Amino acid sequence: MIVVTGSVTARPDSFDEVRRLSLEHVHRSRGEPGCISHAVHVDCENPLRLVFFEQWADRAALAAHFAVPASREFVRSLQSLAASAAAIELYDAHKIERL
Amino acid sequence: MIVVTGSVTARPDSFDEVRRLSLEHVHRSRGEPGCISHAVHVDCENPLRLVFFEQWADRAALAAHFAVPASREFVRSLQSLAASAAAIELYDAHKIERL
Repeated sequence: MIVVTGSVTARPDSFDEVRRLSLEHVHRSRGEPGCISHAVHVDCENPLRLVFFEQWADRAALAAHFAVPASREFVRSLQSLAASAAAIELYDAHKIERL
Repeated sequence: MIVVTGSVTARPDSFDEVRRLSLEHVHRSRGEPGCISHAVHVDCENPLRLVFFEQWADRAALAAHFAVPASREFVRSLQSLAASAAAIELYDAHKIERL
């Protein structure tokens, strides 16, 4: 499984729009092939910072996700709305336990 | 690396206290041996749900973290404040890319 974490910090004037676009992206992405989970949250230590947590079946599914026109449009929109550049990290992961 | 995700849903009357205890737990945990990151967020789709994302060097560091008296006290406190049982998932993970 590929785990993706990402975050973007909005400006005070762009937060609502970043949050709206992020939820739209989350909901759309959940329907894509190989998407196991996709969610967005607000950092408790920075109310302008949105944090994504995603699980994808494999690299191919993630590559297809990145290539979806709406995903590319989402990234472009964030670039103009963010206070700082977004960071994305990819992990090769497998679940070892559920407590 | 071990990635830990966890979530707890508070009640409307317990949310502020769950959030306060969670941030206290996050800040304390960051200082423990083997803690790479530890953070807590609010689910954009459920304002009562707090979501944790943690990175630990290895299973031994995580086991030591779970054994810290303050960690156990935190879990006990959440049990009495949560609207539903907390879920914790452990992943064996390694970073493959940063975009």
